[in-house]
Amino acid sequence: MTAIAALEVGCYHVPLPVVLSDSTHGDIHHFALITVRLRDADGGEGLGYTYTVGHGGRAVASVVRDDLAPLLLGQDSERIEALWQRMWWGTHYGGRGGLSALAISAVDIALWDLAARRVGKPLWRLLGGFDPNVPCYAGGIDLQFPLDKLLAQSDGFLAQGFRAIKMKVGRARLSEDVERVRAMRRKLGDGFPLMADANMGWSVDQAVAAARALAEFNLVWLEEPTIPDDVAGHARIVAQGGVPIATGENLHTLYEFQQMISAGGVTYPEPDVSNCGGVTVFMKVCRLAEAFNLPVTSHGVHDLTVHLLAAAPNRSYLEVHGFGLDRYMAEPMGIVEGNAIAPERPGHGVSLLWDKLAPLAV
Amino acid sequence: MTAIAALEVGCYHVPLPVVLSDSTHGDIHHFALITVRLRDADGGEGLGYTYTVGHGGRAVASVVRDDLAPLLLGQDSERIEALWQRMWWGTHYGGRGGLSALAISAVDIALWDLAARRVGKPLWRLLGGFDPNVPCYAGGIDLQFPLDKLLAQSDGFLAQGFRAIKMKVGRARLSEDVERVRAMRRKLGDGFPLMADANMGWSVDQAVAAARALAEFNLVWLEEPTIPDDVAGHARIVAQGGVPIATGENLHTLYEFQQMISAGGVTYPEPDVSNCGGVTVFMKVCRLAEAFNLPVTSHGVHDLTVHLLAAAPNRSYLEVHGFGLDRYMAEPMGIVEGNAIAPERPGHGVSLLWDKLAPLAV
Repeated sequence: MTAIAALEVGCYHVPLPVVLSDSTHGDIHHFALITVRLRDADGGEGLGYTYTVGHGGRAVASVVRDDLAPLLLGQDSERIEALWQRMWWGTHYGGRGGLSALAISAVDIALWDLAARRVGKPLWRLLGGFDPNVPCYAGGIDLQFPLDKLLAQSDGFLAQGFRAIKMKVGRARLSEDVERVRAMRRKLGDGFPLMADANMGWSVDQAVAAARALAEFNLVWLEEPTIPDDVAGHARIVAQGGVPIATGENLHTLYEFQQMISAGGVTYPEPDVSNCGGVTVFMKVCRLAEAFNLPVTSHGVHDLTVHLLAAAPNRSYLEVHGFGLDRYMAEPMGIVEGNAIAPERPGHGVSLLWDKLAPLAV
Repeated sequence: MTAIAALEVGCYHVPLPVVLSDSTHGDIHHFALITVRLRDADGGEGLGYTYTVGHGGRAVASVVRDDLAPLLLGQDSERIEALWQRMWWGTHYGGRGGLSALAISAVDIALWDLAARRVGKPLWRLLGGFDPNVPCYAGGIDLQFPLDKLLAQSDGFLAQGFRAIKMKVGRARLSEDVERVRAMRRKLGDGFPLMADANMGWSVDQAVAAARALAEFNLVWLEEPTIPDDVAGHARIVAQGGVPIATGENLHTLYEFQQMISAGGVTYPEPDVSNCGGVTVFMKVCRLAEAFNLPVTSHGVHDLTVHLLAAAPNRSYLEVHGFGLDRYMAEPMGIVEGNAIAPERPGHGVSLLWDKLAPLAV
């Protein structure tokens, strides 16, 4: 065994390059980044991180520092499943998801990074290795963009190498959404993979109506049509809307994915490794989806997630959207002709620029 | 409108009178108490609090201070439903339950206390007023007690005025549980209301087997037979076990209660006002249960909860178990011949002894 010798937590408020807005979160000026650096008794290191759209950063850091660290120090760093159980049950009373899930995720990511670096392998190979070339899409946060700016944004995405794009929907009137999706479809061409994301903005009936109105545009998926708590509602949207449904960025446990999948409420399960419980849970969600004959997609932290989808034969598209975190990374993920490339560096291969982050610490 | 003018947060590690243990949490030496004091622009005050079995206290305090307070200050204190939505969506990304639900609960309780005190009414009357005499039970945390100590504990409960008792089950062998429940039933008599709590210790099949083995002892309910995430499993335990099932202390949203109730997974929904989202959500769970023809019970913070069950015509028994918090209260709840009495003091009527708590601040 190689014991966990040290755990260091950081919390940063990282300003966004531009203010973002969607139908749920309003204007977002910064995101909260919580980092976890583990060191083992042999001097090995692992890095994990999670984030929120602004709130809760100090609380997540407190969970890691005050509640999880005492459960981890001195333990065998390679028994990740056992450590995960220890963290889950050690925070269960106020946990079962929520901020504790974000904290556990950050630690779990660091544990997997540590394990992969120890054997000198990239994470995607350690996890079983399927294909390092992962189809990806650009996630636009563009609900309030005027139409010309929405279309122009696509040109930028194409120039960056993207060959799939997601846009926001959920404008005040459905006819606006239809008009905007039609314009995007016309611009991008019939076969181009286009997704749309409603960020929970609709009732179930509104979502069914929207799906039917948008069906002619052949979306790859329609994302988060309504609140993630309404499992039966999702099943109705899938059954009646006629458009594949993605959801999962707000599901924080394996059980929530199981319930949504078992109920037939989702076509593309979409976990976020930084809030679903880490690599450990993300991969279980991938395997669960595979057992149900469903493709998986992902949300957030693409520099990490590219490894996980590179290990999942049922992967569909990786979401590429990182709130500009790549400005604080030594080697951000590369994109070539629509594919994200899982690196061959040991671990997940992300190195943060600590000196540049330091002034943002809270 | 009367604006919220100030919000003060406290976090305390309160030592337990005796070390407690159950089948999930192991030994518990202290609990974490998080307090919220609101003041409005007219000098009115409201008190709320929540707790955990030890972990997460600082994180909950951070959510209240860093994330909720900015959403509350200056807002109309009487629009509690609107403030609740504001808190829910303002913490949603890392929320939907977990530690954020505890933080929202504490604030929501303070808002209701403020509103009731403003009109000079006890909370149970403001909430609709059913009956201030609420049947209650003593919740023993006694899984590791030898049998003679378990039986002797009952004498103490009876002397305190209790006329209903809950014991722990989930010993290593089911035969031990059967023997202990049989001894308790024999001691207390055939008609005496006796409950048993497994604290999530069983698989679904173990729970069904245990329910069947315990059926002859006529338990009022069997509590938390398995993990709260297994909705379908609960439905099977209810259908096959033949004993009423209570669960809810680990369900942190109205939606989770709806899913468990709709699936037929629970006979006695058992919300905890300090972790389900506060008075606002607790009362909605009561009304939801009523609509499904189910009695409700409660978990934790009985000095607050007595008001809520005193306003619910479908109440069953109030749990009385407060980790010894009554040592830090001016006027702890009274019990007369098996009933807890909702006080007539304005608000919830709880005054904490701040000078006595001060040394426990963390």
